[in-house]
Amino acid sequence: MHDNQSLLPLAQAAREAASTAASLSTDGKNGVLRQIAGGLSLRRAWLMEENSRDLAEARRQGMPAALYSRLAMSEGTIRDMTEAVNQVSCLNDPVGEVVRMWRRPNGLQVGKVRIPLGVIGIIYESRPTVTVDAAILCLKAGNAVILKGGSEAYHSNTALVAIMHEALKENGLPETLIQLVPPVEREQLYGLLEMDEYIDLIIPRGGEELIRAVVAHSKIPVIKHYKGVCHIFVDQSADQDMAESIIVNAKVQRPGVCNALETLLIHRGCVSAFLPRIVASLGSRQVEIRACQQCRAIMPGMKEASEEDWYREYLDLILSVKVVADLDEAIAHIGRYGSMHTDAIITRDYNNSRDFVRRVNSSVVLVNASTRFNDGNQLGLGAEIGISTTRLHAFGPMGLEELTAQKYVVYGSGQIREA
Amino acid sequence: MHDNQSLLPLAQAAREAASTAASLSTDGKNGVLRQIAGGLSLRRAWLMEENSRDLAEARRQGMPAALYSRLAMSEGTIRDMTEAVNQVSCLNDPVGEVVRMWRRPNGLQVGKVRIPLGVIGIIYESRPTVTVDAAILCLKAGNAVILKGGSEAYHSNTALVAIMHEALKENGLPETLIQLVPPVEREQLYGLLEMDEYIDLIIPRGGEELIRAVVAHSKIPVIKHYKGVCHIFVDQSADQDMAESIIVNAKVQRPGVCNALETLLIHRGCVSAFLPRIVASLGSRQVEIRACQQCRAIMPGMKEASEEDWYREYLDLILSVKVVADLDEAIAHIGRYGSMHTDAIITRDYNNSRDFVRRVNSSVVLVNASTRFNDGNQLGLGAEIGISTTRLHAFGPMGLEELTAQKYVVYGSGQIREA
Repeated sequence: MHDNQSLLPLAQAAREAASTAASLSTDGKNGVLRQIAGGLSLRRAWLMEENSRDLAEARRQGMPAALYSRLAMSEGTIRDMTEAVNQVSCLNDPVGEVVRMWRRPNGLQVGKVRIPLGVIGIIYESRPTVTVDAAILCLKAGNAVILKGGSEAYHSNTALVAIMHEALKENGLPETLIQLVPPVEREQLYGLLEMDEYIDLIIPRGGEELIRAVVAHSKIPVIKHYKGVCHIFVDQSADQDMAESIIVNAKVQRPGVCNALETLLIHRGCVSAFLPRIVASLGSRQVEIRACQQCRAIMPGMKEASEEDWYREYLDLILSVKVVADLDEAIAHIGRYGSMHTDAIITRDYNNSRDFVRRVNSSVVLVNASTRFNDGNQLGLGAEIGISTTRLHAFGPMGLEELTAQKYVVYGSGQIREA
Repeated sequence: MHDNQSLLPLAQAAREAASTAASLSTDGKNGVLRQIAGGLSLRRAWLMEENSRDLAEARRQGMPAALYSRLAMSEGTIRDMTEAVNQVSCLNDPVGEVVRMWRRPNGLQVGKVRIPLGVIGIIYESRPTVTVDAAILCLKAGNAVILKGGSEAYHSNTALVAIMHEALKENGLPETLIQLVPPVEREQLYGLLEMDEYIDLIIPRGGEELIRAVVAHSKIPVIKHYKGVCHIFVDQSADQDMAESIIVNAKVQRPGVCNALETLLIHRGCVSAFLPRIVASLGSRQVEIRACQQCRAIMPGMKEASEEDWYREYLDLILSVKVVADLDEAIAHIGRYGSMHTDAIITRDYNNSRDFVRRVNSSVVLVNASTRFNDGNQLGLGAEIGISTTRLHAFGPMGLEELTAQKYVVYGSGQIREA
């Protein structure tokens, strides 16, 4: 049995704070955000001091370099964080937006209006900037938030939350709008994940293991983000200069992220010309190629891709490459091996572009653009709290709107129902 | 441990059928629907025969009258069902709808486009018409559906599904688009609810006990519909004729449904005039009143409401009545005791109408109209698969749109990401 008691007061306080959050005015919320930005900037020396306590412990424990660099906060990190908070204060308030309105034959006027979701729990790993990013997006969308960061970032997160609490207090608002879960045992956290009476949504951000553990133990709905096995299909008609530029960008610019390219599919009609060119271009950028038999018939030196490689999210300078007979085979490959995250076609053919967009139901489907654009800021959402690979409620980058629900409002003049 | 094997082939077949469902043309889907309508009409004698087998068994087991009448199919039921199928064939296809589209400074054109959810499981009780209603809505929205009806309706449901399978076959489509779960043990059903790899959404329709059991055992997201403790607040400025007409409609027209009125809140400024009038009107319609102290000070004969009564969904000719000091107290009462289902204000005051609509975040909030309008058909959705009290994904009546998700599509001309 999980521990369903120790975090109960925290969850209950969040539920109570949610009605305060929902009733805040746009100006009220933006005022808090600007004050948070000011606090972060003003107290950056202290923030870095607190962060250095986490870093010292991380060094003592021999944390791997990649994790350590995610944990570290610099003047630059804090400046970016401050800038992000100011940006969110400038975004439209989604709460109260009338999404649509229509009139019924009996004169009823019916509308759908955005309302906050309620209480959102964010469970994440080392990166302390998530603490601020997640909290301000939840607040701007009128929600209360419960933050559970990694224990390795506890001092940094505590300091960041303290600054946000100061801003809330100065505006006469309860600190329970933004709560940080103290270091707890796994059984206590699993207990929290069963409090569906008090928490409306859980968003886990981190590695696949973390996400699977959250999904397995949560009674609360989870919007998850599993891996991104992203594809680019180079159609026979593709502009090869454009294809090369997009593939290099998608694979090399930041190989460790979920919207980086993992599998390249090449139409057999252009493979003999395009393959040597792209292999050379990627090779000069230290990308390892794992290729299908047909590729290896053209360029025998390449390493062979195994069946498992087609499923893999390398998050590294490695690329699977496969020749396909046509658009149908490309789409079938994506359907079978893909993760419905981000998939692109490079083509000059009008019909193929339409077919690809219609038939590939990934969270982001692109024509003649880099997979790296699957990102809330890049797509114009203003900010993002993560990328959902769950179709329900939100699919793809989640911005402020995805942190809201919609109610129906009905304006009448005495209408009653006849039957 | 649950039985995770026996229904696995069914779930896997549904996942496979989902890609067929997603690729169907609007004409193709509508053709199947019209053929289903034709089949229902043509074979109504056989349908009633199969239904009578369920009814005979129900009589043998002494099924309560209310349940028995839900189970029974008549010529009229079948005609209504046929009509409903034809209506759904006339609704707009939600799949492929471009919800919104915008342009980024770098020239990327970004849109949100509706796609099917995938595989939807419907778990429901006696009413066999749900079998057809749910299946055709899922199909029209491009989804595969798994139906688990009550064992008491098994012959009726099997016959209805057979008619739908005929229509699928005549159109060259796999029967696995619409599957009926055979009578199984509880452990097998709970096993099905863990197959989140193959099923995207579970919608339980039925009593609170059924819904709670599904929520407790499902790893798949559940859109639930708990009880409707619906309120009407009669503001001081209300038109009392209108208030009476709406209250009578909301309480008496069909007291056993979730959008019927359960608690009446009356502003103290109009209670002395309005209370005797509404009590007489409801009394003549056999409605039992359970009243607060202040009401009983005005009309001493009435039964006293207990604290529990304010939470109750009577589903019967009983009404809780309470005097409130003002709009704030009315809203606080709804927040504390309500179920966020359907709440209405009767008022002539502009500001109070706005405040009520803004501050009450129930799935449907009405001004000067009956709570009975919380219904997909009444609000103009064309059809409904249920009423969600979960905020995530869908809140209130769920129509075709709520059976879809949205993907991002991005049209570029070679854009790559700079940083």
